[in-house]
Amino acid sequence: MITLYYAKGTAALAPHILLEEAGADYATRLVDFAAAEQRSPDYLAINPKGRVPALITPKGALTETPAILAYIAQVFPGADLAPADPFGFAEAQAFNLYLAATVHVNHAHKQRGMRWTDDEAAQAKMREKVPANMTDCARMIEEHYLKGPWVMGETYSMCDPYLFVITRWMKVDGVNLDDFPAISAHFAAMQARPAVLKVMELHG
Amino acid sequence: MITLYYAKGTAALAPHILLEEAGADYATRLVDFAAAEQRSPDYLAINPKGRVPALITPKGALTETPAILAYIAQVFPGADLAPADPFGFAEAQAFNLYLAATVHVNHAHKQRGMRWTDDEAAQAKMREKVPANMTDCARMIEEHYLKGPWVMGETYSMCDPYLFVITRWMKVDGVNLDDFPAISAHFAAMQARPAVLKVMELHG
Repeated sequence: MITLYYAKGTAALAPHILLEEAGADYATRLVDFAAAEQRSPDYLAINPKGRVPALITPKGALTETPAILAYIAQVFPGADLAPADPFGFAEAQAFNLYLAATVHVNHAHKQRGMRWTDDEAAQAKMREKVPANMTDCARMIEEHYLKGPWVMGETYSMCDPYLFVITRWMKVDGVNLDDFPAISAHFAAMQARPAVLKVMELHG
Repeated sequence: MITLYYAKGTAALAPHILLEEAGADYATRLVDFAAAEQRSPDYLAINPKGRVPALITPKGALTETPAILAYIAQVFPGADLAPADPFGFAEAQAFNLYLAATVHVNHAHKQRGMRWTDDEAAQAKMREKVPANMTDCARMIEEHYLKGPWVMGETYSMCDPYLFVITRWMKVDGVNLDDFPAISAHFAAMQARPAVLKVMELHG
């Protein structure tokens, strides 16, 4: 049995969708951020970094969204959720890495600026640049990486639920999605998938 | 043939070491940051993100350090540079992801604050927190992730050259490595490896 620790509005939505797409037998556990449960000793024993998602597997806990997505793809090979050849797999990973290490980081400068400075005026300055940075990222994805209709082309993969999460953030971060037709079409296609409809009932 | 695009002082050092450890037949191309070559049309055709490393493979270009490291491990399976089982592979990936999406990002707030704000006073405030953030990351690695003597335990892997790069940055970012004996021992062990000695001739 696999258990996904998640919180609403976080990147945990991506592995949640992927578990559903894989037809996995899994449980979920909501981590209550309002009660700072991610900082509780019980949760830190699962993920010392105090973040979600975390995935409890039969062999132990895993963290970091792209690593969890690749794990799900690898343990459910019949669901065909990642390219099997090393180059294709690396391309898919590189896409997810860009989302994790650049786009998610840019997004975090809106609400999580205290990670990088305790100065509130500086945090406000960082917030000001978020719409422009997220728009630059949308352009990069639209022009160079989203092959269409899915991220990797004709085949749905571990990249698609992660882009779905990021697109939701782009919308609230001030990106005008009308300027990005490929991302908009991807977002609409994701919203129509049964796995996404089911999981969104929990993530609201 | 594989070609690594790199610049001195960057994360490209990690895949460079790993190519050497794999016994790969590869070439290197120095990207001249002083001449802003990473922003040249020729280089942007290789990596639209304008960053290093990039790896040219027979099937096309790859970006993002953890994706490149995993690719090298997968195309040189005889070198045993990543765990073969999905859980072990995911654990190794999660370690590299933490370096890429948290530690490298914290480090970047010292010299690359303009990514997140154009305000110079705010950039200065971000710089102030870098030593504390990098020290927190060192503690996380020391206490929870570095199994020893190598990151994944007894077997050297794709995680080790990346931690080596990060440790070099920790030193210049004000982390007192004397407080972290496991990381210090890892750094010393890395410096003794023939592959590292050879590659450091280029990276200086």
